[in-house]
Amino acid sequence: MNLSQPRDGGVIARCRRLLEPALREAVSVLHPGSAGMAAFALGWSDVNGREQNGDGGKKVRPAIAMLSAEAVGGSAQDALPAAVAVELVHAFSLAHDDIIDNDELRRHRDALWKAYGVGPALLTGDALLALAVRQLAGRPEAMSYLSAALIELVQGQTADMAFENRPWHGPGEVTLDEYIEMAAGKTGGLLGAAAAAGVVLGGAPELGDRMWAMGRDLGVAFQIVDDVLGIWGDPQVTGKPVHSDLLREKKTIPVLAALAAEDAAARELSAVLDSGVVDEESARHAAHLVEAAGGRERARKLADHYLSSALGVIDEYLPDATDLRALCDSMVDRVY
Amino acid sequence: MNLSQPRDGGVIARCRRLLEPALREAVSVLHPGSAGMAAFALGWSDVNGREQNGDGGKKVRPAIAMLSAEAVGGSAQDALPAAVAVELVHAFSLAHDDIIDNDELRRHRDALWKAYGVGPALLTGDALLALAVRQLAGRPEAMSYLSAALIELVQGQTADMAFENRPWHGPGEVTLDEYIEMAAGKTGGLLGAAAAAGVVLGGAPELGDRMWAMGRDLGVAFQIVDDVLGIWGDPQVTGKPVHSDLLREKKTIPVLAALAAEDAAARELSAVLDSGVVDEESARHAAHLVEAAGGRERARKLADHYLSSALGVIDEYLPDATDLRALCDSMVDRVY
Repeated sequence: MNLSQPRDGGVIARCRRLLEPALREAVSVLHPGSAGMAAFALGWSDVNGREQNGDGGKKVRPAIAMLSAEAVGGSAQDALPAAVAVELVHAFSLAHDDIIDNDELRRHRDALWKAYGVGPALLTGDALLALAVRQLAGRPEAMSYLSAALIELVQGQTADMAFENRPWHGPGEVTLDEYIEMAAGKTGGLLGAAAAAGVVLGGAPELGDRMWAMGRDLGVAFQIVDDVLGIWGDPQVTGKPVHSDLLREKKTIPVLAALAAEDAAARELSAVLDSGVVDEESARHAAHLVEAAGGRERARKLADHYLSSALGVIDEYLPDATDLRALCDSMVDRVY
Repeated sequence: MNLSQPRDGGVIARCRRLLEPALREAVSVLHPGSAGMAAFALGWSDVNGREQNGDGGKKVRPAIAMLSAEAVGGSAQDALPAAVAVELVHAFSLAHDDIIDNDELRRHRDALWKAYGVGPALLTGDALLALAVRQLAGRPEAMSYLSAALIELVQGQTADMAFENRPWHGPGEVTLDEYIEMAAGKTGGLLGAAAAAGVVLGGAPELGDRMWAMGRDLGVAFQIVDDVLGIWGDPQVTGKPVHSDLLREKKTIPVLAALAAEDAAARELSAVLDSGVVDEESARHAAHLVEAAGGRERARKLADHYLSSALGVIDEYLPDATDLRALCDSMVDRVY
C-alpha cells in the first residue's frame, strides 16, 4: 500500500490526526500495566514504555470508517467511535493472532507476547476488545456490524487454523473457494464493519449492508495481496523473511491457485510440497513453480476481481466518494 | 453453594431449562472445531466430542438475569439474551484465565487449553465473547452493562496478576481495599451486568444502576467465599488440592486479613510467607496461622458485610423478589 504517495497521504494523515487523541483516551482508562502493553501494541511506545513514533500500522480501517461517514454527508467526527472501535479490534486480533500463530515479529518489533509473555498479551488483547465494544455499546446499528465482524474474525481465524491440518491436494484438500470465504471473514469482516458503521453513523443506515459487502470484497483482495507479499514481498517492507509463508507451509492463494492449474509445474510443486519446504533453497524452488504454474498471475486476477467488486459498490452508491475510493484502491495496488 | 437444597434447586433448574436451548443455539453458528471446544468448555461434551452431562457450572449468572427480569414484572424469557450473554462471557473468562494462570484443571477435568492447546483455547474464548456481544448488540441499555462488565473483568484480572508481583507486606504491599476493588471488578462486574441487564430487559431500566451495584457487592462476597475455599475447601468439592492458593502464594482475603492483624500469629505468618510455602507441611502451618491471626473470621465478616449490602438493595427496591434474594444468599453461604 503506497500511502506515502500524495494522493492519499493527506487524507490518511487527516484521519489519523482525528483518531489519535480519541484512541489514546479510550486506552487511558486501563490499568497502568495494561495501558503500557496497549501502547506498545498500538506503536506508541517501546517495550520499556519510552515514547516511540513507531509503526502502528496505516490505520486504514479507521480511515475507511471516517471517509464512509463523509461520503454520505456526515463528518469524520461522527464516525469516530466506529473508527476507534475498529482500530482496537484490529489491535486485539493482531495480539491474539501472533500468540496463536506463534509469530515472534510484528512490524519489525517483537510481537506483544514475545515482549511481555503470553498471559499478559492475551489479557491486553481482551482489554482492547472490551474497549472496542464500549465505543459502540450505545449505538445498536453500528454495533451490529462490529459484532458481526467479531464473529467473522474468529470464524475466519478458526478456518485458517484448520487449513493447516488439511492436505494440499487430494481428499480434504483446501479449495480456493474455501480460502476466499475464510479471507472474507478474517480480513473482510472488520473492513466491512468499518465501512458499514461509518455510513450508519454518517447518517445513511440504509447503505450499511452494501458497505458491509464492499468491505468483505475489499478484504479478500487485500488478503490476496498480503499472500503475494508473504511469498515475494521485500523483507524490508513486510518485516518477515522472504518466502516466509512457503517455509511455514501456509495455505495461501498463489499456491492454491498454482496447484489448481494441474499442469507440469503444478505437479512438480505438489511433489515439492509433499516432500516439505525445509530450507531457503526449496522455498525458492517452490516460489518459482508457483509462478510457473500461473499462481501469481491468477492471484493478481482474483485480487483485481474482488477489488473491482468493492469499488463497484462505491461507484454505484457513493459516486462522489473519491477519497474513500482512492483509499480502498490503494490498499490493493501495492504489489504491482 | 448448596444448590442441591430444594429451596433453590427448583428455581435454578427452571432457569437452566430455559437457558440451555438458547445457549446451544448461540454456539451452533461456530465453525465445527470451535463449536466442539465450546461444547467442552460449557460442559456438554468430553474432549473426544462425546456428549456428557458434565458440570458446566451452576449457571448462577443467567439465573440472576432471569430472576431479576421476573422481579420487575417481566418474564425470564425477556432476559434470555442477557442470560446467554453473561454465561458466554463467564465461559470466555474461564477459558482465558486458565491460560493466564496456567491452571491445568477446571471442574475436575482438563482446562480447555490443556485439552486442546493454548492457541485453540484462546480462540475459542474469543469466539464465546463474540457470541456474547452479538446477543446484546441490538439492545443498547443492556449492552452498556455487559460492556462495563467486560472492562471490569479485564481490569480486575490485570490487577490480580499485578498482585502476584507485589509483596505480602512492607512498601508496595497489597492492601485489603485494593483486593476488594479487584474482586468487585473481576467477580462482581459480570454479576452486576446479569442483574442490571435483567431488570433492563424485564422493563425497569431505572433500576439498572442499583442492580449493577448489587451485583458488584455480591461478587466481592462470592470471591471471599471462593478464597476461603481455596485454602480450606474440600478438594472433592473444589476440584483443587487442599491449600492450593497458599501453595501458589496467591494473595487472598483470609491471608491479607490475617497479616493486617499484626499480632504474634500474623508476624509468624509473615515469616512463613517470606521463606516460601513450599510443601503441604508449610501450607498446613500457614493455614493454621491465618486462622489463628483471625484471617478466616475476618473474611467471614467481610463476606457477610458485602452480602448484606447486596441483599439490602434487593430488600429496598425489589422486596418481593424472594427467588432472586434466595439465590444471591445461597451463593455466599456455602462455607459456613
